[in-house]
Amino acid sequence: MILLKSVLCGKEVSDVLIDGNLFKRIAPAGSFEVPGGTEILDAGGLAILPAFYNAHSHSAMVLFRGCADDLPLNRWLSEYIWPRERKLSPADVYAASRYAILEMIRSGTVFFADMYWHRAETIRAALEMGVRAAVGVTFSDGLSSDEEKNVLFLKEHALEYKGLVHLSVAAHSIYTVSAPLLVRAAALAEELNLPFQIHLSETAEEASKSLTPTNGKSPVAYLDSLNVLSPHTVAAHLLHVSDEDLCILKARGVTCVHNPCSNMKLANGTFQMRKMLANGIRVALGTDGAASNNNLDMREEMKFASLWAKAVSGDPELLPAEQVLEMATKNGAEAFSLNGGVIAEGKLADALLVSLDDSRLFPGDLVSNWVYAADSRAIDTVICDGKILMLHKKIPREEKIIEEFRRLLENK
Amino acid sequence: MILLKSVLCGKEVSDVLIDGNLFKRIAPAGSFEVPGGTEILDAGGLAILPAFYNAHSHSAMVLFRGCADDLPLNRWLSEYIWPRERKLSPADVYAASRYAILEMIRSGTVFFADMYWHRAETIRAALEMGVRAAVGVTFSDGLSSDEEKNVLFLKEHALEYKGLVHLSVAAHSIYTVSAPLLVRAAALAEELNLPFQIHLSETAEEASKSLTPTNGKSPVAYLDSLNVLSPHTVAAHLLHVSDEDLCILKARGVTCVHNPCSNMKLANGTFQMRKMLANGIRVALGTDGAASNNNLDMREEMKFASLWAKAVSGDPELLPAEQVLEMATKNGAEAFSLNGGVIAEGKLADALLVSLDDSRLFPGDLVSNWVYAADSRAIDTVICDGKILMLHKKIPREEKIIEEFRRLLENK
Repeated sequence: MILLKSVLCGKEVSDVLIDGNLFKRIAPAGSFEVPGGTEILDAGGLAILPAFYNAHSHSAMVLFRGCADDLPLNRWLSEYIWPRERKLSPADVYAASRYAILEMIRSGTVFFADMYWHRAETIRAALEMGVRAAVGVTFSDGLSSDEEKNVLFLKEHALEYKGLVHLSVAAHSIYTVSAPLLVRAAALAEELNLPFQIHLSETAEEASKSLTPTNGKSPVAYLDSLNVLSPHTVAAHLLHVSDEDLCILKARGVTCVHNPCSNMKLANGTFQMRKMLANGIRVALGTDGAASNNNLDMREEMKFASLWAKAVSGDPELLPAEQVLEMATKNGAEAFSLNGGVIAEGKLADALLVSLDDSRLFPGDLVSNWVYAADSRAIDTVICDGKILMLHKKIPREEKIIEEFRRLLENK
Repeated sequence: MILLKSVLCGKEVSDVLIDGNLFKRIAPAGSFEVPGGTEILDAGGLAILPAFYNAHSHSAMVLFRGCADDLPLNRWLSEYIWPRERKLSPADVYAASRYAILEMIRSGTVFFADMYWHRAETIRAALEMGVRAAVGVTFSDGLSSDEEKNVLFLKEHALEYKGLVHLSVAAHSIYTVSAPLLVRAAALAEELNLPFQIHLSETAEEASKSLTPTNGKSPVAYLDSLNVLSPHTVAAHLLHVSDEDLCILKARGVTCVHNPCSNMKLANGTFQMRKMLANGIRVALGTDGAASNNNLDMREEMKFASLWAKAVSGDPELLPAEQVLEMATKNGAEAFSLNGGVIAEGKLADALLVSLDDSRLFPGDLVSNWVYAADSRAIDTVICDGKILMLHKKIPREEKIIEEFRRLLENK
C-alpha cells in the first residue's frame, strides 16, 4: 500500500491511500489510521489531479516528428508518412513506442489508445514502461493473410491482455478498408467485447464521398448502414458531420475523439463541439500521432480544445476547464471501459501530482490553471495502476531509453 | 565579454561571443581567438534561439489569473476586471509585475510591451529583473489631471528611459478614450518618437460602432480620419477588419499584434492572418494579460497562432514554424524599434538556449520542434542585453519573489 500524505485533493488537504491498483481511502489528512508497512509519500505542497487518458494516438509516429509540417492530410499521408511506414521494422516501433511513452509520462498521460504497425512491439513497450494502452490490431485491405492472422491473434489474446494493456480492433478508415472487412472487424470487436477504433469523417474529401464507396451516404451513415457503429466504437476526428450524423452517433453510443492540434495543423475541418455536447455524445480527447501535432501532451490538447471550441462557436462560456479536463481523463477511460480517470475511492489508482510551487498554478483556481496556464513543468509525480512511474520529476531509465532511440535513428 | 562555447546555431556548432549588450562574433566552434578575461559558458548540448518579444501584455494582471474564465469581454471587463483594478495599489503592481516577469523569463521572453496602471512600479520591476519593456503611459478620459501629469512625465522621462526600459504612449481603446485625447496622445508619441499602443477592433461590438463615436466609420478608418495611425502605432487584436481597413493599416505602417489565446478564449473574433500577410502588414505576437490567456508563454502562443491560422484558412501551409517564430521575436523587436529578435552579429544579445536533450526536440527540425512540440521545460538559459537572467534553469531570487507575491495576496 502507498499513502499520499497531505496532498491537496479538491479544496482539502487529504491523505490518499492506494491499495494495490485502486484508491482505497481519501479523507482529510491525519483522519484515519494507516496500516503498518504502508509506503509513505510525503505529498505536502502537491495537488492530486486525474492523469490523462489519450484516446487516439499512433505512439511510434514520434519517429516522424516534424518530417512533413505544413501539408494537407492526403499529401502528408501519401508522400511522406506511408512511404516511411513501409520501411518500419519491429525494432523501430519498439524504440519509438518507448520514447513516446516517456513523453507521455512526463506530460501526465497513463493511458493511450494506439493504432499502428508491429503491435507486439507497442504492447511490449507499454508493459515494460507500466502504462495502460488499448493497442489496436489493425485490419487493412489487400493483406488477406494478415486478416486471418489478426483474427487468430485477437481470439487467442483478447483475454490474455486484460490488465494494463488490452487489445482493440482497429480499421484505418472507410477509404482504406472495404465494407466486408469493416463488417468483419466490427463483428469481431462485438464478439470479443473489445473497442473498435477507426478514423472517421476526418477530411472534407472523405465526407464528400469522392474517395469512398459509400453510395452517396455520409461516412457516418455509411458505417451505420453496415451495422458497424455501437458503444464499442471509438471514432477519431468526426469533423464533417451533419445533424443526422450526430443523431446516429448518439443513438449508437459512439465515442468521438477530438484531436484539436492535429485537426488544426492539417487544416482538416472544424469539430462541432457545441453540437456534439448538445446531442449528449461522449467526447474524449486525443493527441493523434506526434507527426501531425507535433507532441503527445494532453495538457496542451485541453487548452486547444477549449479555446478552439470557444473561438469557433463565438461563445466564451463553451467548454469550461472542468469539462475539458473530464474529456481528457474520465471520458477517455469510459470509452475504453476502464474504471479510471477520476480521483475517487474504488477507482483505478492513476493520478498526477502537480507542484503548487509552480508559479503558473497561482493565483486562481487549480483546475483552471491546470488547463489554461500551466505546462508539463508543473508535474512532479505520475502514478499508474498504483505504481509510481515518475517520482519528483525522475523516470527510471529515462536517459537510456532516449539514448537508444537516438542511436537507432542515427544509424539509419 | 561572454563566450557561448559550442552552441548549436542554425545547423552549425558555433562559438558566440557577446561583447557588452551585442553579439560580436558568431562563427564555427574554435575558429576564432577569444580575448583574455572572457567569461566562458560551456553550451555544448544546447542550441541558441532568439528570445521572445511579447508585443502586447498587461503583466500585473497575473493578479487576476483565472478570476473570471469563460466570459465575454464586456462582462469580463466591467464585472470582474475593472472593479478589481480600482482597488490596485502600487505595491500590488510591483509584486505582480515581478512575478509576471519571472514567468516570462522561465518561458523565454526578454521583452514585453505593457499597458497598465502604476507604470512606475512596472518600470522598477523590469529594471530590477533585467528585462526589456516598453511601458505604456496610459491616457484615459475623465482623468484630466492625469492627462497633464502624463504629458509632463513623458516629456521629462522619454529620454531617460532609453535602455532596457523605454516608455510608450498608450490609449486603452476608441470606446474608452475620446477623439481629442486620442489625437493628443498620438501627437505626443510622434513628437517624442515613442511607440503608440492601443487595443483596436477587438470585438464585434466595437467594430459595429454601437459603442463608439466613429460616425459610421470602422475603428481603423476612424483612427485614420483622426490622423492617429503611423509607423509608431502598435495596435493589438484587429479581429474585425475590412479589406479597406487592411489597406489603411498597411499604408500607415501600423504593426498589428496578434494575441491568439486571449482572442480565442474570449471568443472575440478571428484574426485574418492570410489577409494580413497578403497585405504585407507587420504582425507581431503577444500574450495579452494572464487574466485572459491565462499565461504569458510566447512558445505556446506561437503554436496557437500557427494552428489557428491554418484551421481558419483551411490551408495547412499557412504560417509555417519559421515565420511564426519571426513574429514572436524579430517582428516584435521591429515594432518597438529595437535592434534585436535575431541571432546575428551586431544585434542585441538576447537569446535563449534550449537543451537538445529534451525529448521533444528530437527527432526533426529544431525550429519546427520548438514551435510545435516543445514546452518551456526545454529552456535551459535565458540571456537579455548580454546578461544571463536564467542559467541552467535557475533564476536568482526566484523563491523570494514568488514568496513575496503570495504573501501579498494572502494578506488581502
